[in-house]
Amino acid sequence: MINVGIVGGTGYTGVELLRLLVQHPEVNIQVITSRSEAGIEVAEIFTNLRGHINLKFSDPAESMLDTCDLVFFATPNGTAMQQTEALINANVKVIDLAADFRIKSIVEWEKWYGMKHACPDLVSEAVYGLPEVNRTQIKTARLVANPGCYPTAVQLGFLPLIEAGIVDIDHLIADVKSGVSGAGRKAAVHTLHAEASDNFKAYSASGHRHLPEITQGLSNISDKPVGLTFVPHLVPMIRGIHATLYATLTKDIDLQKLYEERYADEAFVDVLPHGEHPETRSVRGSNLCRIAVHRPQNSNTVVILSVTDNLVKGAAGQAIQNMNLMFNLPETMGINQVPLLP
Amino acid sequence: MINVGIVGGTGYTGVELLRLLVQHPEVNIQVITSRSEAGIEVAEIFTNLRGHINLKFSDPAESMLDTCDLVFFATPNGTAMQQTEALINANVKVIDLAADFRIKSIVEWEKWYGMKHACPDLVSEAVYGLPEVNRTQIKTARLVANPGCYPTAVQLGFLPLIEAGIVDIDHLIADVKSGVSGAGRKAAVHTLHAEASDNFKAYSASGHRHLPEITQGLSNISDKPVGLTFVPHLVPMIRGIHATLYATLTKDIDLQKLYEERYADEAFVDVLPHGEHPETRSVRGSNLCRIAVHRPQNSNTVVILSVTDNLVKGAAGQAIQNMNLMFNLPETMGINQVPLLP
Amino acid sequence: MINVGIVGGTGYTGVELLRLLVQHPEVNIQVITSRSEAGIEVAEIFTNLRGHINLKFSDPAESMLDTCDLVFFATPNGTAMQQTEALINANVKVIDLAADFRIKSIVEWEKWYGMKHACPDLVSEAVYGLPEVNRTQIKTARLVANPGCYPTAVQLGFLPLIEAGIVDIDHLIADVKSGVSGAGRKAAVHTLHAEASDNFKAYSASGHRHLPEITQGLSNISDKPVGLTFVPHLVPMIRGIHATLYATLTKDIDLQKLYEERYADEAFVDVLPHGEHPETRSVRGSNLCRIAVHRPQNSNTVVILSVTDNLVKGAAGQAIQNMNLMFNLPETMGINQVPLLP
Amino acid sequence: MINVGIVGGTGYTGVELLRLLVQHPEVNIQVITSRSEAGIEVAEIFTNLRGHINLKFSDPAESMLDTCDLVFFATPNGTAMQQTEALINANVKVIDLAADFRIKSIVEWEKWYGMKHACPDLVSEAVYGLPEVNRTQIKTARLVANPGCYPTAVQLGFLPLIEAGIVDIDHLIADVKSGVSGAGRKAAVHTLHAEASDNFKAYSASGHRHLPEITQGLSNISDKPVGLTFVPHLVPMIRGIHATLYATLTKDIDLQKLYEERYADEAFVDVLPHGEHPETRSVRGSNLCRIAVHRPQNSNTVVILSVTDNLVKGAAGQAIQNMNLMFNLPETMGINQVPLLP
Repeated sequence: MINVGIVGGTGYTGVELLRLLVQHPEVNIQVITSRSEAGIEVAEIFTNLRGHINLKFSDPAESMLDTCDLVFFATPNGTAMQQTEALINANVKVIDLAADFRIKSIVEWEKWYGMKHACPDLVSEAVYGLPEVNRTQIKTARLVANPGCYPTAVQLGFLPLIEAGIVDIDHLIADVKSGVSGAGRKAAVHTLHAEASDNFKAYSASGHRHLPEITQGLSNISDKPVGLTFVPHLVPMIRGIHATLYATLTKDIDLQKLYEERYADEAFVDVLPHGEHPETRSVRGSNLCRIAVHRPQNSNTVVILSVTDNLVKGAAGQAIQNMNLMFNLPETMGINQVPLLP
Repeated sequence: MINVGIVGGTGYTGVELLRLLVQHPEVNIQVITSRSEAGIEVAEIFTNLRGHINLKFSDPAESMLDTCDLVFFATPNGTAMQQTEALINANVKVIDLAADFRIKSIVEWEKWYGMKHACPDLVSEAVYGLPEVNRTQIKTARLVANPGCYPTAVQLGFLPLIEAGIVDIDHLIADVKSGVSGAGRKAAVHTLHAEASDNFKAYSASGHRHLPEITQGLSNISDKPVGLTFVPHLVPMIRGIHATLYATLTKDIDLQKLYEERYADEAFVDVLPHGEHPETRSVRGSNLCRIAVHRPQNSNTVVILSVTDNLVKGAAGQAIQNMNLMFNLPETMGINQVPLLP
Repeated sequence: MINVGIVGGTGYTGVELLRLLVQHPEVNIQVITSRSEAGIEVAEIFTNLRGHINLKFSDPAESMLDTCDLVFFATPNGTAMQQTEALINANVKVIDLAADFRIKSIVEWEKWYGMKHACPDLVSEAVYGLPEVNRTQIKTARLVANPGCYPTAVQLGFLPLIEAGIVDIDHLIADVKSGVSGAGRKAAVHTLHAEASDNFKAYSASGHRHLPEITQGLSNISDKPVGLTFVPHLVPMIRGIHATLYATLTKDIDLQKLYEERYADEAFVDVLPHGEHPETRSVRGSNLCRIAVHRPQNSNTVVILSVTDNLVKGAAGQAIQNMNLMFNLPETMGINQVPLLP
Repeated sequence: MINVGIVGGTGYTGVELLRLLVQHPEVNIQVITSRSEAGIEVAEIFTNLRGHINLKFSDPAESMLDTCDLVFFATPNGTAMQQTEALINANVKVIDLAADFRIKSIVEWEKWYGMKHACPDLVSEAVYGLPEVNRTQIKTARLVANPGCYPTAVQLGFLPLIEAGIVDIDHLIADVKSGVSGAGRKAAVHTLHAEASDNFKAYSASGHRHLPEITQGLSNISDKPVGLTFVPHLVPMIRGIHATLYATLTKDIDLQKLYEERYADEAFVDVLPHGEHPETRSVRGSNLCRIAVHRPQNSNTVVILSVTDNLVKGAAGQAIQNMNLMFNLPETMGINQVPLLP
């Protein structure tokens, strides 16, 4: 059994980690911390967990995280970088679900996240936890930077095209749409039901924090800097990300075959049959990414549709996938749920 | 392994049976029939099941259901009664998720369901599949009539009050609210998203088919006919039932204790702490019924709040709970999922 | 033209007042105050108003409200009572959309609202602004207490029964459901889209502030104290209230006729034909209350269904209806919009 | 007063025409036809209209449409082309809200709409009813082809760029999202609330009927054929279209100024201040198109965000705008409602 600690368990990625970990056959949840809710039963805050967990939130200061085998940080950006070094030195593995270790360039990170990085040394060691790209390195990593929700859907969508070198990488377009849980479980006006339901809008069109993460990932694959226009939108639904990706083909190959072969051995990437359109609910509550490939009017513009559940493959599920790899467990263990539909 | 057949697998109770049964450790899904979709991959209709099932819908006529150990009918009312007798005679157990065997009075059934009953003889044998009331009989039943969604939530809510004989049974009120999936997966105007979302209404206030089912169940418990006013409403959500139940107390006892004791040994009924309010999402995708007991202003009107997922405890999950009992398996096997929240 | 001031214009009742008043033919919006947004264009906060209003929020301290003919308070409870006396003394009429002047008993008010009343003297003068009950007094009022959203739907629903003296007033039940805008436009977790959508729950079952307001209103009509059980619920929709009301008949009369005659001359109360069920969207954006009368199974339990738009007839629209009465304008002026459907 | 007839009034464009026309000061609704609902009160089907209209649906055969001044066709594609010629010959003006007269190439039309055109002669006479492009011709038209919902939002968004000749017209991208009412008020499975809510998907990525309409319109403006990739998506909301448009700049000019000047005199096109993002609810129930211009990372990819209410500016409202022009009324008459928010 892996003794697991969770730091910051009161957000959506926290409760999603709990939903999955309480039934993971090789995990013992040893501690879950929350400054604001210390002393309160977890199941009192997250009523779906009543009967599945008997644990109270504990004060971070008294949590003895260094006795865990693995600590997940489900905290706001800027928290994990304060505590990771001590844990690593105590031989505790760390998976950060926030952005602290995702961007290799400290300058770039500090620009987009608006704070000084507390732990730049570990950034270069951290492995970017996208198993479909970095599986080998993840297996031996001490510190995994779990990818963002948009970056997961976008990179998995573009990956085969860029690896194959058959698109103009200077003019990629990612028109992405997210459910409201992507904004987190925090009091706010613009994500109230009365504001966000029965409504649709773009936001951060001039620049979103996930842009440098995606371009870093795609540039690593292409070995050249890519040019990406990235426009996120807010969808009146709870979970789900839908990326609609556009690229200009520079070569004419069988795109369906390219995608099917690239992902043939991936348990969590499902390439749909030719002509289909994935829908977000088809992955609701699951760790899957479903992808479809279109080439409208047979022009040289390829359209990739890529969907995930932002809280699972886009956060907690992928973190557990990384944990399974780091602890040499079957990669799908505990995260093979059937999506909930309808 | 139990070899299972499903008749009529293209509705919501059908896909929900599949979602749960494909991961049930003691079940082999042998056949699933659909006249309209015969020959088509199940996963093509229900994309959430891609990767979890390799089965095509088969024509009912060629399905050899009599080689199954158990057949679930997830069909419209009036279908199971045509085929059950032959299956029972072939030693196949049957669980009907529709209403064909729920009402003991044939006259009453024919009045509410508007057709002649094809198989009245089996009605008296059929066991009403509410485990919290009829567990012993279910274990040896050949034919189980799986309860309706509203009747499950309402009966579990009223049960302790009526067993204890402490309310006026002539004036019970059940104000119940259901998500739209309760209307089934069939083309219709009034349940379109553009009609049913951002809207709330009552329907069938003058009489709904679940009324005689509930009154039969409650009358059995009280040994006297009960008087019930039952008003269903349509909620702009997918899954979930919320019953708000009102009764006039005739005796003054500790209601919280009454409920906690009555359900102490029930795996799927959760009595919330005093003062709480259950929400439908806290049982989403799970077989749970969560109940809270209120007595506003300490008057003699008791208010019971009872929530279920209409497709699980109100249909497919309860059917599998009954199957587990009929085949002497642990009652919770395969239906112990953590509710999906948010 | 009436020169109008609005205090506290950044909530939902504020923007709804603006939506209706900018096209009211006899109104000039002179000033709208907001401490937090002073100096900002109204249309910048409420983008639906771009092109319809050229006004900035102004600081309450500099707003010269005493030069208005009428001031609406669209503020949290406890604000209007601080400022009303000075305005009344300056010959400015006041309509308070909050609860400060609704409850005649200061003791009762202070118990439910948890603060000391700053202006008890004016409470007795204030006219409760339900035109269908108090039209004559409203016409000459200096100060109108605009009813709450639940109280409007519930009182209009029960009114004919109680006036006719044909129900047991000791055991009234109001099972009411509200859209999320009823919780106001303020940052909170429980009304986030990710929390409140695809979900249904009761709240405050043991006691809600609108209870004393409703019982006061119904008791005034019956001339005896009424006993009411009042359970509010949260519906995953933006606007709309649906009250399902239960009462025990003590006399047998033609209920449909009773309701049709009672409301024959009311422009904003629509009694539906026998057997119908009102839906909240049928009044969306309008000042209407639609009511249906049911008597299931011809028992002695009568069921009244009453729907309103909580922001219009339940708040801003009714306030303008009161304004029209106070300034001797046609009662429907400016509030005769067709409901938006779908 | 203009005597107006509406053919096919039971769909969403029909009820929306009614919502707006019943309060239009210069319109008398003389007749509204529906084969299926003939003899039934309009307000019985569309309960929002109770109290606003006293008209029954009439049988098309007995409707004497030729005594109207103007007939709106709110019918499925293929109906208006059967009846328009006779009406025109009887001096009745016609506005078709369906697609029968939108595409000038009969070959192209027949390919996309899958039927033979019944009235090709009138196609060339028909004026495409986008007032911001064809105002002069609309004023004297006998027959107006009212634009589709997607084409309105997309053309108004691209218009200034293409008129100015500053983008690569061979590689335009329109990623568009529509509320579910765009699919019409007809019984179907895929648009049920239980299917379409809490979900997001693309559809018809390989080719949608609105593609040739948009390319025809944009090609007319550029005087050269444009190349467009057009991917529609279904949003879990009732009303609203959001077009996210991408183009590659070939010249560097002040884009904000370009848009503001182009639409300075347009009553129904609102260019937002620099940096803002329009949301669909900001035009809910109104005839507005709101547009924002972005140039992320100052690259040569311009991003235009354009929102409309698909039932108003995308259908019924624009039809009335065209009517106002054809009958020499103020262009905004009867369609100047404030959007409903929240």
